[in-house]
Amino acid sequence: MTDAKPIKPHERLAAACAAEMEAVNGLIRTRMASEHAPRIPEVTAHLVEAGGKRVRPLLTVACAKMCGVEGDDHIKLAATVEFIHTATLLHDDVVDESDQRRGRPTANLLWDNQSSVLVGDYLFARSFQLMVETGSLRVLDILSGAAATIAEGEVLQLTAARNLATTEATYLQVVRGKTAALFEAAAEVGGVVAGAPEEHVRALATFGDALGISFQMVDDWLDYGGAGDDIGKNLGDDFREGKLTLPVIRAIARGDDAERAFWRDALERGKSDDLDRAREILARHGTLEETRLEALAWRDKAKAALAALPSSDLRDMLGDLADYVVARAN
Amino acid sequence: MTDAKPIKPHERLAAACAAEMEAVNGLIRTRMASEHAPRIPEVTAHLVEAGGKRVRPLLTVACAKMCGVEGDDHIKLAATVEFIHTATLLHDDVVDESDQRRGRPTANLLWDNQSSVLVGDYLFARSFQLMVETGSLRVLDILSGAAATIAEGEVLQLTAARNLATTEATYLQVVRGKTAALFEAAAEVGGVVAGAPEEHVRALATFGDALGISFQMVDDWLDYGGAGDDIGKNLGDDFREGKLTLPVIRAIARGDDAERAFWRDALERGKSDDLDRAREILARHGTLEETRLEALAWRDKAKAALAALPSSDLRDMLGDLADYVVARAN
Repeated sequence: MTDAKPIKPHERLAAACAAEMEAVNGLIRTRMASEHAPRIPEVTAHLVEAGGKRVRPLLTVACAKMCGVEGDDHIKLAATVEFIHTATLLHDDVVDESDQRRGRPTANLLWDNQSSVLVGDYLFARSFQLMVETGSLRVLDILSGAAATIAEGEVLQLTAARNLATTEATYLQVVRGKTAALFEAAAEVGGVVAGAPEEHVRALATFGDALGISFQMVDDWLDYGGAGDDIGKNLGDDFREGKLTLPVIRAIARGDDAERAFWRDALERGKSDDLDRAREILARHGTLEETRLEALAWRDKAKAALAALPSSDLRDMLGDLADYVVARAN
Repeated sequence: MTDAKPIKPHERLAAACAAEMEAVNGLIRTRMASEHAPRIPEVTAHLVEAGGKRVRPLLTVACAKMCGVEGDDHIKLAATVEFIHTATLLHDDVVDESDQRRGRPTANLLWDNQSSVLVGDYLFARSFQLMVETGSLRVLDILSGAAATIAEGEVLQLTAARNLATTEATYLQVVRGKTAALFEAAAEVGGVVAGAPEEHVRALATFGDALGISFQMVDDWLDYGGAGDDIGKNLGDDFREGKLTLPVIRAIARGDDAERAFWRDALERGKSDDLDRAREILARHGTLEETRLEALAWRDKAKAALAALPSSDLRDMLGDLADYVVARAN
């Protein structure tokens, strides 16, 4: 019997790493426990078991496996990466005052902001404990650096919001913080823990970084309805939150006085929520299409980085994953 | 010319470690910077330069120096400890919705909750980067464990608040989380980084733990006006926040029906803010005095731990510090 349903690249990758991902999930469940505070596993389980795709830990496992890892340090690091990601989501939802994530109520809504902040802190600490267990100072260096870049990017996003003077360089720094830094670290530590040659480790880092940037740019494109129909997220969230993303930054730079007045009202002052007008301006300057092309260019960079690694099924699947990430924008 | 003004023990300790503490302060200033997000040093400076006593980094420096440290890893670890403490304060103020700390408006009031959460995350990440620089996996293990205990204790405090069934064991776990875990780790890593014999490292950990518990118990005693006059903090904060501290836990256990009804109204339901009535009940059961005696017992335990270390001026000053911590309760 043949299953005719097309299997998505991240599902194929997950199937190729099924045993490892099961071990990762088991470790996550064990380590999110708390001897003393039952609130911790409650909150964590709500998020961890919400059916996310586990793309980040999958990157770690796949990169490590591709590089011939032995032992189980890559399992620990994959769980570490997912803990850092989960902690970030908990804090993000507090910062953004969100009430929904992945179609479910957020932890800050179900419990309270306090629990989200403190359980996030607990997961950060647990993630560092897991890293320490690998005994690799290089891994600790990479992941603590990524954690700093993530937090810095989030602060930058906060202060750049509603600021029309935000530059493309700042935007890229925010993108690295909110997405690419952890993708990069997740792939890189996979190579490190497998003892891969330096050249391969560098290639994996470049791959993860480019994949993350591509992913985020597609997200920013979709927020203005690039795809034209249902995209599984709320259209115009970035617009309403006054976030300065690439299509907007470029449109502002090329806009006339009337358009600048509109952006000022909408983004700086939050006085207009006319998303249709915003999309019309972006379309006029072609900046949505440019953002799509930028995302494709980063996808190409990600795939080019993979070319430095020995040919293998896993390598092909990682390449397909990069295609899939931007497929939403094709 | 003699300065007749009595010098407090932490000032004597700070004077004995003046060069090291200057290096610590310099490192803190350097590392709290951010290349991209100026909001980070603004928020951090507000707290770091608010004139705290730097007791925790001082513990690390003094313990390391007492054990004959060479190099500058103890400077890095002292800065690490202060960063973890500062991150915790930033998140605490969000969790407690505080508007004052050390007599100044809190960061969440001056900026916003978002900045406090994210800058706290940045400091956590930076603290781990600093630890990694020491290259000591044991130090990383100790401090990541402390960070987990801190977060767990904070969650526990959150869920135990307004719950009359809170036990003394839970109280002690909360105390370890909010205060003793970092005191313990601060002292312990000082010994580790100095290459002290295992027995001395253990003694330093015991000293830090007991000092922290003593410190927190005095705080909990002062909150109900144990000292009878101005104590530099708001009387009754714990009472109003429904926190179950030692004097209250014991008074509840010994109370009659009327008293239990009062505690239920005041702590569980927040319907009474009659602090005088609360103090009267605590006095009747003698639990404030018992809390003072417990604090003194932990002080004695701290000093007994020091006896395992070779005699030195720094050791004596650390003993004096333990006396000073509870002097507020004498």
